[in-house]
Amino acid sequence: MTFNVRTTQRSEFLDITGEIRKALTSSGIEEGIVTVFVPHTTAGITINENADPDVIRDIQAALERMVPWQHPAYRHSEGNSAAHIKSSLMGSSVSITAAGGDLKLGTWQSVFFCEFDGPRSRKVWIEITDGKKS
Amino acid sequence: MTFNVRTTQRSEFLDITGEIRKALTSSGIEEGIVTVFVPHTTAGITINENADPDVIRDIQAALERMVPWQHPAYRHSEGNSAAHIKSSLMGSSVSITAAGGDLKLGTWQSVFFCEFDGPRSRKVWIEITDGKKS
Amino acid sequence: MTFNVRTTQRSEFLDITGEIRKALTSSGIEEGIVTVFVPHTTAGITINENADPDVIRDIQAALERMVPWQHPAYRHSEGNSAAHIKSSLMGSSVSITAAGGDLKLGTWQSVFFCEFDGPRSRKVWIEITDGKKS
Repeated sequence: MTFNVRTTQRSEFLDITGEIRKALTSSGIEEGIVTVFVPHTTAGITINENADPDVIRDIQAALERMVPWQHPAYRHSEGNSAAHIKSSLMGSSVSITAAGGDLKLGTWQSVFFCEFDGPRSRKVWIEITDGKKS
Repeated sequence: MTFNVRTTQRSEFLDITGEIRKALTSSGIEEGIVTVFVPHTTAGITINENADPDVIRDIQAALERMVPWQHPAYRHSEGNSAAHIKSSLMGSSVSITAAGGDLKLGTWQSVFFCEFDGPRSRKVWIEITDGKKS
Repeated sequence: MTFNVRTTQRSEFLDITGEIRKALTSSGIEEGIVTVFVPHTTAGITINENADPDVIRDIQAALERMVPWQHPAYRHSEGNSAAHIKSSLMGSSVSITAAGGDLKLGTWQSVFFCEFDGPRSRKVWIEITDGKKS
């Protein structure tokens, strides 16, 4: 399964938990592992809190301090090295358990698509491994 | 499967390899993928060395230098933004192969629950996908 | 499945996408999840761009700025704490979808073995979960 994401800023974390839940429901799979994969090298994916939006703002700001958008040592000609580095720091996939046909997440956990070089039109791929009878 | 972890310090890495092994044994599954998931947004999970405890101390100290507990830019009112950021840097799950009913890890690898906002009572979830006959 | 990697520098990112593709082909599995696991605590694995080699150079240099090889606070006696820290930052595994017998990666994505304490002879483990009929 695939769905599209539309980002509107250079750095933006979008809560995609609802889309992943919908994909799981439409698969009809009750138990197993949901692998959510981002097929981009200047975006990533992570799980964190969405109750207070300042959590995500603090994560984005901390990544910017660790990996500033501009640095005299960058050599990549497209000028978006920071986005590539943040992509590898967050990672390109998350694995989540499905149980009872629902996504098993902790109370405060949401899944975020991490845009690091937007605005762009992006894709998210979902693969669900059926764990039933196994 | 679920087990509990009790942390006693704000930042603490606990070796949970034994608990994961026990869960695999009790599942009776011989081959497949063991997904270990942390359902918290101020904790994480990672694989690293447990032979010399200074390795883990150096990892914790390096994370603290990259993401200090206090920073004038943090906006999250609970004051634990650093824990959220470290959680995303380490990640919320690891995937390990099971073979011959045992966890396949490299010689020096142990699995660590990473507490970043303790002390707390925490949970770890384990999902095992049977890879037999597949 | 296992294959060996020979690194020639202390810090080196090797594109192992071809080896993973070969393993998938020889497994005969058409659909599922390919888990690529690095059984080392001073190496890691990540997905990023291989079109411009400067992307990888910029990632390596940024990791070096975040986690310098030498730091007065390191206590691990082997002197390779930076390699352990980078290993946890990049992670020990990636999960990739297989579809139609081929690895499903984004246009610009390649899989890189990340050496952080070379030169060494290293191993990569691949486990493929068959997703057919599920």
